[in-house]
Amino acid sequence: MSQRKISMAVIRRLPRYYKYLGELLNNGVTKISSQDLSDTMQVTASQIRQDLNNFGGFGQQGYGYNVEYLYNEIGKILGQDQLHNMILIGAGNLGQALANYTSFGRQGFHLIGIFDINPKLVGLKMRGIEVLDIDNLEQFIKENSVDIAILATPKAGAKDMAQNLSDWGVKGLWNFTPEDLFINGDMEIENVHLFHSLMTLAYQIHND
Amino acid sequence: MSQRKISMAVIRRLPRYYKYLGELLNNGVTKISSQDLSDTMQVTASQIRQDLNNFGGFGQQGYGYNVEYLYNEIGKILGQDQLHNMILIGAGNLGQALANYTSFGRQGFHLIGIFDINPKLVGLKMRGIEVLDIDNLEQFIKENSVDIAILATPKAGAKDMAQNLSDWGVKGLWNFTPEDLFINGDMEIENVHLFHSLMTLAYQIHND
Repeated sequence: MSQRKISMAVIRRLPRYYKYLGELLNNGVTKISSQDLSDTMQVTASQIRQDLNNFGGFGQQGYGYNVEYLYNEIGKILGQDQLHNMILIGAGNLGQALANYTSFGRQGFHLIGIFDINPKLVGLKMRGIEVLDIDNLEQFIKENSVDIAILATPKAGAKDMAQNLSDWGVKGLWNFTPEDLFINGDMEIENVHLFHSLMTLAYQIHND
Repeated sequence: MSQRKISMAVIRRLPRYYKYLGELLNNGVTKISSQDLSDTMQVTASQIRQDLNNFGGFGQQGYGYNVEYLYNEIGKILGQDQLHNMILIGAGNLGQALANYTSFGRQGFHLIGIFDINPKLVGLKMRGIEVLDIDNLEQFIKENSVDIAILATPKAGAKDMAQNLSDWGVKGLWNFTPEDLFINGDMEIENVHLFHSLMTLAYQIHND
């Protein structure tokens, strides 16, 4: 399965399949056709078949997909069978919301550190974790295995911070600053564009 | 321009073009080639030409794109020349972060109301706006023109809320609940999947 290069467009659709299959599984559904998946997910059946064909062997003509098997296989592809240590940088409203969001009932993502530059926040406990001064960040990362850093700071200094995180060995950055970040090194960066999604909504309001 | 149906995949890339063109404009750049845009944006030049060809007439062979013209045209397509009245439903950490995020330096998006169910939040002022009890929502929407509602509540009740918002005349919903929402009616819905983007990052860490 891992021999084949799968396009990021397909990968980005997998979490939705994973979520719906999980709900089906919870409801006791054992198999499903691409047409039924299509009706629930509002993606065309042909798109679903094409996407899932990337992984091979999940569906059978006239039978449909085995829900549990498909759920587990997509989960493995998405690394859901692995534990990810996360740190949060920036403990303002957005950072706190993300800390809560990822800690509740989300298997596999484990928040181990929170950092901020604001002396009013340093020393407070959030979700049982003491907020540390950002000066402790380098040492913390070198002493702990950090898979993912959530960056929820203002734009200023974000690029230098990203480069540092990569140099110190963080594997992935979930970037919520308004700046698209690209760095030298191996760290993967997921740039989240909240405002872009708002602009897309504005487009749809005016054009549909 | 509006006669042609443009795919949502293209539309979703426009905010990035818009942002970079705005930065170029601020830096006094008057024209740019698709190759230079490509280097900055890390999208292939051929993709850029294909995307911008959807709108016709922006580029000239051997000259490149007129930055200001392109910026303004994409802005119009995205509705950036119009004012959007927004309300926020759910004034917890995420809601407050979104209220701050969309209010600072974002032209055209105007927060006019904040609603919550929590008596501890009702009556507080956020960004100069008093948080109202959710019971006032229907009347508020009927008395004010609401283009976009930001939904930053827990999952429970989200589907009914979305249907109500549509019935009461809200034009677009920016949905931050963990539930994909689909309703009957004309309201456009932008489902934001924060967790999906985290899963995609986890995939990239393990597969690149």
